[in-house]
Formats: sequence, structure tokens, C-alpha cells
Amino acid sequence: MRVIGVDPGNAVTGFGVVEKSGTVHCIGAGTVRSANSISRPQRLASIYRNLLEVLDRYSPDAMSLERSFVAINVQSAFALGEARAAAMLAAAHRGLAVFEYAPTDVKLSVAGYGRADKRQVKEMVRRTLMLDRGCELADDAADALAIALCHLFQASMARVRKGS
Amino acid sequence: MRVIGVDPGNAVTGFGVVEKSGTVHCIGAGTVRSANSISRPQRLASIYRNLLEVLDRYSPDAMSLERSFVAINVQSAFALGEARAAAMLAAAHRGLAVFEYAPTDVKLSVAGYGRADKRQVKEMVRRTLMLDRGCELADDAADALAIALCHLFQASMARVRKGS
Repeated sequence: MRVIGVDPGNAVTGFGVVEKSGTVHCIGAGTVRSANSISRPQRLASIYRNLLEVLDRYSPDAMSLERSFVAINVQSAFALGEARAAAMLAAAHRGLAVFEYAPTDVKLSVAGYGRADKRQVKEMVRRTLMLDRGCELADDAADALAIALCHLFQASMARVRKGS
Repeated sequence: MRVIGVDPGNAVTGFGVVEKSGTVHCIGAGTVRSANSISRPQRLASIYRNLLEVLDRYSPDAMSLERSFVAINVQSAFALGEARAAAMLAAAHRGLAVFEYAPTDVKLSVAGYGRADKRQVKEMVRRTLMLDRGCELADDAADALAIALCHLFQASMARVRKGS
């Protein structure tokens, strides 16, 4: 199973693709950036278009998204909702199921501790995927890989529970 | 000039198309509904797809959206942001410029009073567009027409100021 994790943001959207075939490994990760100078509809169109390209390049089976329940304020919730929608629409238009996880679920799955900080999560992502120290990993891409791993682990556990 | 106003919502999205050619008149108005039973990404895809159809049917020159700065809570801000994004993406993908107005601007433009209630706004929309009493108008469609009229008035005033 191949999963893409997406960490949507108005300026930077992280993505990370992981696969389980025997072991778990990283297929690709990176960020999609949209210029400050363009209008918000153009920004969303840019996130959407770039994510479609990523989906077409990596052909994942599912998309995993962090479902945040908090925001600094209502304005940032609006902006985050808009960016998340661009990711959800890209998934819907490629026929991918979208799975959502709370931030604590992601941390618990990846770092074994629901209150792990960003550094700890990044470190566990590196270890789980056996990423070389020399391999530079943007924070947003690391977050996206953690979100992808969360779904991979949850789906594997669900299969074990079902006995398949 | 032909303007589509859109009032996005997760369950019901209102739209209204107005045109100024001599007088101001209504070209079309209605609502786009998405089923409760489908997933959020599918809902957004449905709003997006239906709005694209509306844009292709009426060929407006611009889209007008209400830019809300408040929400009942962060969760509703996330949901509203997602629905707005579907509208903005539809506009971007048809090359339409998007104009945003605060709710008080819409009320002020249409009813002459920034704190007008929904009923007053609807009544003024009916009068301005000379809509027959027998013509049923859903609340969300009336709101969308008000948002469209707001841009039409603002754009007309801008042209007058420029002397064109």
C-alpha cells in the first residue's frame, strides 16, 4: 500500500509518500510553494495543480490529512480550510479516498507519544524510514511523512484486527 | 458586465447571476446542494463540479464572494473555508477574477444600511432586480444575488470615479 500524506498550508504545502511492501519506506517527499504575490484563488489553484502533479507522479492508493481542531484564530482557520480543500479536491479528482487524523493520533502513531514535539516527530520519521542524515528534509515534508505513516500504521493494524 | 455572486456552504451553496446593461437585471439564481451522506472531499468535489456547470451556463465576467471575518467557532470556519475554496477554484479554473466583500459592505450596497437583516436584504434584492412576488427565491440564492449586486455597484462606482 502506498500513502501520500499532505500537510496543507497557504504558503507551503508539504507532501510525503510512503509505502509498505515488507518494510516501510519513503517513496518521495517535498513541498509545494505558492507565491505571496498572487491572489488567493490563484494560490489555491497552484496548490491544487501542483498536488495533482504529485499524485500523478507517485500514484498513491490513499491520501492522509491532518484534521486540526484548533487554530490560532478564526482567520487562520478559514485559510487552513481553504488550503485543505485544495488537497481534498485533488484527491477526489484522482479517485483517492481521504483519511483524516488528529495531530495527537499522528504523534502517537509515529513517536509513541501524543505530545511529542516537532523535533521528536521528525527524528522518528527519519528512523522509521531509515532516511540518511545527509538527506535534507523540510519540516513540512517531515510532517507530511508523519501523517502518511499514521495512516499506513492505522490501516495495517485494521488489517491485522480483521485477520487479513 | 455580468457578475456571479456565490454564497458557499457545505450543505447548500447559493448562486446568483446579475448583469448591468442599461438597467440591472437577474440572469439566473439558485442553489447547489450536496448530500449529507457523502464524504467531505466528495462534497467539495460536488460543489466545485456544480459551480463549474453554472459558470459554463451563464458565462459571468467576475465572481463576487462574501469574505466573512467571523464564524460561530473554529470548526465552522474550517468548513466554510473549505466550501469557499471550492468556489474560488472553480473561478480560477475558468479564468474569472474573484472579488471579496465583507458582509457589511454587501448590506450597505444593497440595502443602504450595513446592519440590515436578511429579510430587508432579500426585499431590496427583489426590488432592485424587479423580481416578481410570485418568483420564489431561496434565502441562499437571495444572499448570492446581494453579493453579486454588491460587486456590480462597486465596479460601476469605480468606473464613474475613473471617468470611464
